[in-house]
Amino acid sequence: MKALLLVAHGSRRKQSNDEVVALAEKLKNSCGEQYDIVKSAFLELADVLIPEGIEQCISDGATSIIVLPYFLNSGRHVFEDIPNIINICTAQHPNIDISLAPHLGASELMVDLLVSSAVNAK
Amino acid sequence: MKALLLVAHGSRRKQSNDEVVALAEKLKNSCGEQYDIVKSAFLELADVLIPEGIEQCISDGATSIIVLPYFLNSGRHVFEDIPNIINICTAQHPNIDISLAPHLGASELMVDLLVSSAVNAK
Repeated sequence: MKALLLVAHGSRRKQSNDEVVALAEKLKNSCGEQYDIVKSAFLELADVLIPEGIEQCISDGATSIIVLPYFLNSGRHVFEDIPNIINICTAQHPNIDISLAPHLGASELMVDLLVSSAVNAK
Repeated sequence: MKALLLVAHGSRRKQSNDEVVALAEKLKNSCGEQYDIVKSAFLELADVLIPEGIEQCISDGATSIIVLPYFLNSGRHVFEDIPNIINICTAQHPNIDISLAPHLGASELMVDLLVSSAVNAK
């Protein structure tokens, strides 16, 4: 079974975290054919943290997990912190294929998204 | 003349700021027909700051400016800080139409972007 784990930084502001959870729900509705499991997790400051999110996916039957960083910039979190956490989880679960997707800022679709947001300016 | 001002938080890490400037360049190349001027600016920690970015657009001949927040979550920056700065700039330039686009996390295209990023997981 394939899982997608949307990973955000996490905020002290509950509403920001709730937005990430809601986005994961939208993602689940939209790509249920490609991924059997879609969940969200946080790097810090909010529940659930990434290792727990990965454990939940595995408990639900995932054999492959794509970690999808909800980050705009290629900072330390994207290039060090999240890969380090994934390495630890991979060592604990050698039979599970855990892979890391590029951060959002790297997406070719970002320009299209920006242009479409600009149209909704008020 | 119409201007688009991509506004990011700003980072102490130069590479993160450079990514925003590079993204504004891509945006310029992609929507030059819709916008005469495309620039970037930062809320804090990096040059140029938003008021200076708005001044630059006006100096270049902009009569309308869309401020496009490169932010994922609807936090204080998106709902208070950036609107407050825009209000001050609007008061200083009553003849310029300065409007604010939704933050990225609100975009209907975000799910598509996430799904397409997941395909590039390694």
